[in-house]
Amino acid sequence: MANIVEPRTLPGFMELLPEEQIEFNRIKRIIESSYEKFGFLPIDTPIIEDSNVLLAKAGGETEKQIYRFNKGENDLSLRFDLTVPLAKYVAKNYGELTFPFRRYHIGKVYRAEKPQKGRYREFYQCDIDVIGDGELSISNDAEIPSIIYTIFKQLDFGKFTIRINNRKLLGGYFESLGLQDKIADVLRIVDKVDKIGKENVKLTLLDFNIEEAKAEAVIDFISTKDNVIEYLKGLNIENESFKQGLEELEYVTKYLVAFGVPEEFFRIDLSIARGLDYYTGTVYETVVDAMPELGSVCSGGRYENLAEYYTNKKLPGVGISIGLTRLFYVLNEYKLTQSNVQKSISKVIVVPMVDDLSYPIEVATKLRADDINTEIYLEEKAFKKKLNYANKLSIPFAIIIGEDEINQNKVALKNMISGEQNVVSIEEAISIIKQ
Amino acid sequence: MANIVEPRTLPGFMELLPEEQIEFNRIKRIIESSYEKFGFLPIDTPIIEDSNVLLAKAGGETEKQIYRFNKGENDLSLRFDLTVPLAKYVAKNYGELTFPFRRYHIGKVYRAEKPQKGRYREFYQCDIDVIGDGELSISNDAEIPSIIYTIFKQLDFGKFTIRINNRKLLGGYFESLGLQDKIADVLRIVDKVDKIGKENVKLTLLDFNIEEAKAEAVIDFISTKDNVIEYLKGLNIENESFKQGLEELEYVTKYLVAFGVPEEFFRIDLSIARGLDYYTGTVYETVVDAMPELGSVCSGGRYENLAEYYTNKKLPGVGISIGLTRLFYVLNEYKLTQSNVQKSISKVIVVPMVDDLSYPIEVATKLRADDINTEIYLEEKAFKKKLNYANKLSIPFAIIIGEDEINQNKVALKNMISGEQNVVSIEEAISIIKQ
Repeated sequence: MANIVEPRTLPGFMELLPEEQIEFNRIKRIIESSYEKFGFLPIDTPIIEDSNVLLAKAGGETEKQIYRFNKGENDLSLRFDLTVPLAKYVAKNYGELTFPFRRYHIGKVYRAEKPQKGRYREFYQCDIDVIGDGELSISNDAEIPSIIYTIFKQLDFGKFTIRINNRKLLGGYFESLGLQDKIADVLRIVDKVDKIGKENVKLTLLDFNIEEAKAEAVIDFISTKDNVIEYLKGLNIENESFKQGLEELEYVTKYLVAFGVPEEFFRIDLSIARGLDYYTGTVYETVVDAMPELGSVCSGGRYENLAEYYTNKKLPGVGISIGLTRLFYVLNEYKLTQSNVQKSISKVIVVPMVDDLSYPIEVATKLRADDINTEIYLEEKAFKKKLNYANKLSIPFAIIIGEDEINQNKVALKNMISGEQNVVSIEEAISIIKQ
Repeated sequence: MANIVEPRTLPGFMELLPEEQIEFNRIKRIIESSYEKFGFLPIDTPIIEDSNVLLAKAGGETEKQIYRFNKGENDLSLRFDLTVPLAKYVAKNYGELTFPFRRYHIGKVYRAEKPQKGRYREFYQCDIDVIGDGELSISNDAEIPSIIYTIFKQLDFGKFTIRINNRKLLGGYFESLGLQDKIADVLRIVDKVDKIGKENVKLTLLDFNIEEAKAEAVIDFISTKDNVIEYLKGLNIENESFKQGLEELEYVTKYLVAFGVPEEFFRIDLSIARGLDYYTGTVYETVVDAMPELGSVCSGGRYENLAEYYTNKKLPGVGISIGLTRLFYVLNEYKLTQSNVQKSISKVIVVPMVDDLSYPIEVATKLRADDINTEIYLEEKAFKKKLNYANKLSIPFAIIIGEDEINQNKVALKNMISGEQNVVSIEEAISIIKQ
């Protein structure tokens, strides 16, 4: 007898039971098929990369979280996102890709963060990006939210809001007030206005040595939620960056409706900025209305230059990322997924009550040929145990086959939910199961 | 300007262009949906595991190939197959699983082998196993090859043969000759009979200090290809292991036909043994008839005890594994895949010839709502460049929208292969594209 090692899974790594995995995969497939519905091409890159390549840009906090190690003479790292691999991929394959390059990528990434509720060290990201060769139309920025909408609507977890802003507009506005160096500080504090109140925000802004009138202007600006485009136009700010950002934001929100996103599912939110050193135009965040405290479940934006660390080509792009592992955790934890989703893989289980399995096997083969997921219970157990197995796995139908059914060339079809059971032909069984 | 790092991918890691990735994913989905068709449940385990857990059983050659490293205080390893994670999973979740536990798992595994043609350091395995709690019916051994058959038939790469043997039979036979200690040596040399000829095999067997009569018996045994069951029965060997193995082999091959596997797609091959220290009953290999030199593209078998390193429970099982990355390499390299498979994700590209994109976007939204993968060409380029983009991506249909089409509430549908172009309603376009 071998020594027994405790079969544990590392903390911070999600490992689901089959029933949960079925739901996880359902969500993953909705994301994947939606990305394909919009014509994005699949790529799949290695999880292990040369550290020199992967960390060309990284530094600081990110670098500390990386799984980095040597194997033989190689300095290797596990990817920590899907953006750097995309940059590498596009730079490497530039001559063989067709631009604009629309790609999706669903895969695991690794960050050695402190494990905590809802934070994982291994997690799936589901990314789409459109990469232009030198230039990329602003229309792409309007299409992206419609993809988010399509996916989250199908996931049917309740009302959500896609928040949209524009970094040029934001930068231009702060420039016009002479506050361009304080954007990060200001945004961080203004973000808390709902929690701590306008007065406290103002006091903190004054602490940053911002004049009172400007502090009030900033609070007004950030808090404007209605008729935002009109409000922004009314500011009459003569700053090129502001004007261009405003034009882009107006264009994007105009076409969003044409792209099928109902007005109540998106809004301009002048308080969001996302990664200050990366995004340069449109930015997106998505919040579940019932739980804004969860933060954004899908974010992204427009950037000027995807791959400057790998090529001199200018490659502007726009994209978003869904953190699937975290999203699944949230939907599961807060019971937001539909309760009536399929819990089993098999639609039907064939239960033989005879010794010779030939007929039951033939029945199963026919069901499968008709595209019905079917398993056969092959163990020699009591009838009750066989049905108990089907119940535990939430299989909705059982086909029970005894001598009588074989002699009649029929099957006994049992609806495992209602308990109803009828002797029918195989063809009838197929049509009932398919309903 | 940042310093430019060469955007390279590590040797031994497969990274495909989008068109190849589409084909890779098509194959992966056929495997996945076939596994589900037979009622296998999905699981997904971490790629990183605690080295103590993952390497509980490993040793020797395997251990050298493992990506093992420290992060903080943790001794970590990347999984090198999907069997050890399954053993861990079943032992860990024993109380929450329903037995027989039928699971599939498709995921990447890692082995730092010397990179060479068709060998990868990161590769997908696609595994199914049926795990019993204490016992597991031999019928499962007959179902497994029908799953291989279903998948490879769909992949349509030409004729293949599933080779079946039984380790009990093999062990019993060698025991009856008093050669039980020499099985590994004998099988290795006998396997070369087609290459080096019977006489040379015999000489080598004599070198192993095997008596001439026994050497000839072994060669006869291993080379028997026709009416194998009758041949084996005729040997009249009074060895318990032999008799049980023969009974199992007869049972399995009898039901294979009921499971829908035509006789020409499988045969008993008494020369295959697979991992000598793991499999204990039925064993499988699968070869592409046109290229036997490629070796087995799908192997597996019956084992007595899945998880003895993690639990005292006896967990017998039977399973197979498809090495998808290698299989894809082979199909691609030898041009065995169908030439008429879809090369694009998008079925149609909407090409706007107007400034206002509202109508083109509405058309695309309608196509998507009708389940047609659709992209819109959003860049401002010359008409020729737009169609060139569609051609490069092998998109089969283009919908061209100018002022005339908008005024008539119609679209110009162009078949990109035949070049035929007609002005039709959106509904007509949808029905043509769907054909």
